[in-house]
Amino acid sequence: MLKYRLSAIIRFILIKYLFTCFVCVCVCVCVCCFRAVSMEGQPLSALSSPALVVDIDKVKTNAQRMIERCQALGVQLRPHMKTHKTLECADLMTAGSRRCIVVSTLAEACFYADHGFDDIIYAYSLPFDKIERCAALSEKLDLFQVLLDHHDALQQLKRRPLKDGQLWHVWLKLDCGNGRAGVLHSEPEALSLARAIAGTEGVELTGIYAHCGNTYSCTGVEQIQAVAQDTTSCVLQFMEKLKAVGITCKSSIGSTPSCSHPVQDMSKLSEVHPGNYIFYDVQQSMIGSCSLEDVAVRVLTRVIGHCPQKDQLLIDCGWSAISLDGAGKLPTGYAIIEGHPDLKLSSMTQEHGRLEPISGHLDYSKYPLGTLLSLIPHHSCATAMMHPVYHVHSKGRLLGTWNPTRGW
Amino acid sequence: MLKYRLSAIIRFILIKYLFTCFVCVCVCVCVCCFRAVSMEGQPLSALSSPALVVDIDKVKTNAQRMIERCQALGVQLRPHMKTHKTLECADLMTAGSRRCIVVSTLAEACFYADHGFDDIIYAYSLPFDKIERCAALSEKLDLFQVLLDHHDALQQLKRRPLKDGQLWHVWLKLDCGNGRAGVLHSEPEALSLARAIAGTEGVELTGIYAHCGNTYSCTGVEQIQAVAQDTTSCVLQFMEKLKAVGITCKSSIGSTPSCSHPVQDMSKLSEVHPGNYIFYDVQQSMIGSCSLEDVAVRVLTRVIGHCPQKDQLLIDCGWSAISLDGAGKLPTGYAIIEGHPDLKLSSMTQEHGRLEPISGHLDYSKYPLGTLLSLIPHHSCATAMMHPVYHVHSKGRLLGTWNPTRGW
Repeated sequence: MLKYRLSAIIRFILIKYLFTCFVCVCVCVCVCCFRAVSMEGQPLSALSSPALVVDIDKVKTNAQRMIERCQALGVQLRPHMKTHKTLECADLMTAGSRRCIVVSTLAEACFYADHGFDDIIYAYSLPFDKIERCAALSEKLDLFQVLLDHHDALQQLKRRPLKDGQLWHVWLKLDCGNGRAGVLHSEPEALSLARAIAGTEGVELTGIYAHCGNTYSCTGVEQIQAVAQDTTSCVLQFMEKLKAVGITCKSSIGSTPSCSHPVQDMSKLSEVHPGNYIFYDVQQSMIGSCSLEDVAVRVLTRVIGHCPQKDQLLIDCGWSAISLDGAGKLPTGYAIIEGHPDLKLSSMTQEHGRLEPISGHLDYSKYPLGTLLSLIPHHSCATAMMHPVYHVHSKGRLLGTWNPTRGW
Repeated sequence: MLKYRLSAIIRFILIKYLFTCFVCVCVCVCVCCFRAVSMEGQPLSALSSPALVVDIDKVKTNAQRMIERCQALGVQLRPHMKTHKTLECADLMTAGSRRCIVVSTLAEACFYADHGFDDIIYAYSLPFDKIERCAALSEKLDLFQVLLDHHDALQQLKRRPLKDGQLWHVWLKLDCGNGRAGVLHSEPEALSLARAIAGTEGVELTGIYAHCGNTYSCTGVEQIQAVAQDTTSCVLQFMEKLKAVGITCKSSIGSTPSCSHPVQDMSKLSEVHPGNYIFYDVQQSMIGSCSLEDVAVRVLTRVIGHCPQKDQLLIDCGWSAISLDGAGKLPTGYAIIEGHPDLKLSSMTQEHGRLEPISGHLDYSKYPLGTLLSLIPHHSCATAMMHPVYHVHSKGRLLGTWNPTRGW
């Protein structure tokens, strides 16, 4: 009797176990199928708006072109992840190696580390509240690298030696005229900090890192290359100073404009670290980094209202979908309305955008409610940040979705 | 032998099953404990920055004050979810009823419906690409309500009758001078559209909805109340016109400024629908909706760099953490730096903010690297949008996290 009961109980548990497994598998299959089947192959017009759409062919071309450009120059490409924050773009930018990337937040570093990426620079002046998390990544990965520009940050690293004699891999952030973070190249402090890093036990001076964000105020290739040359020369001169005191390490400069039009001297650097080029945007096309045809992202939006008394169209794209970046910078407002050079995105609230004619009056018959429009963003980093999901397509047919990471 | 093998297999599966269960339980307990134990009770300074922090006591006070104000006025409060997009705030704003809310996106509507909320107005000019999703919600909930301001939208509803003779519950969006969405109250079109809605089979004219966003250009209670009075009078007059043609329905106006300082005539309306008041922000304090002490959210940030050559401090809050809202509107830049009225958040890039002295020079000894600062956002809707997680505290001690919904 007891035996029978036991066997019944075992049977019951077994059935329950197998049933649970079966249900789980079914759910997973259904979810996957639904995701894949529901949108794949459909036209962009099947998407609800607003939606960020990514042209995979342009993304691949942008990624490949930068890889080839760096190969031709003989410099290591270390792509920046801050614009897209997805695994898929990271794979394209690293040609599948999952090695040698830069991130702007520790959340990105963790995300990529969790997915098998390694050789990561956390290119952000070492934040004191994140030392422990940085230490954990350093101890977990083959090569997690931090960046600093102040003696106090070095003291923080000394106070937290890594396990088993592992080294903190440190890049010194040098300000070569950009004027944001970094120790100014011309200050004696720069050399003394480099020597202090190199001379600290448990710490390695891995490289000198400069961001030429001042290329963003350029117009045209000539100006971009002048800044690229200045930054490169500045870093190379600093490397000479280091050499003179017996220190050798890597060097890296970056920004999408400078790496889209590199100067020959950049081949003398160890690495370059552009990021935005994977998507590009209107801003980059105005700087001269790319043509408007290279821009790989759009925000799809629809006409949801007519305001004849104000000569306006209402669209379902507010700042929650395209960001407030670009205010006052474009004749067409916060974005370019693709195929409608006569329209301007003049203002936005959270979920509404207002389109106005640049001259003359609106012909409302051209824009019935529901009309699908496509906005080319001024700054793709800012626009992508607003979207929890990117919709990927090839030649206007949907392929699937990408999920960026968020937070810090 | 076979019996023995079978019993061994069963034992093996059983052990595996129990072990799996045990591991799952352990993981859940650990995760819960870690979440609860790791931060609960700790001071705000334990958080990594940047971080959005919510003062639960202020949130509760703001929620309760609006509930009592509406009770005193004798009007139904239908709080708007667009600012916070969380379950926790929704519970506080509805006093736990989980009924009678407004949302700005269909993603919000689905999120709240999935968590047991009902009686929801999707207060957005009916988007043609979302009719099917709206129909699904209408058929699922007791009371899902849409909003429209155009005959074409009504045609869309007619083409998609709801199951089992259910009615589309429709609010007519009236523009009473705000000048964004809505049919202009003074146009004959407004009355004809209301009559068309009321006269359409399968559709019910549930109410007249007006947003007095024009209160956002007010300064002081007097101006706010003038706009509130205008909007209320405009809606009430329209209700009279409807009555004259035999139509009765609800009425609702809203905006945080108008509902923070309601006029007596608002008691003649059925409902009001403010939203931002749950957090408030610097903008609302400048309009006169609240005092700066009522603002319930902050962005915590830390000093990460000194730039003496530019008389600037670098902080780890860029536009990715506070948004670009407020450009040029405050003497202190994009935010108020709490306790430091002499500082200005003058510019930002994605992950960096620059603080400058409003007059004189910075005393860097007051701001060593790692110094924690607290920013009061210009527009809490825009700032909250940038954060995947909100950190909730009471009197500076952490209680837990809230997870807002995102998307459309």
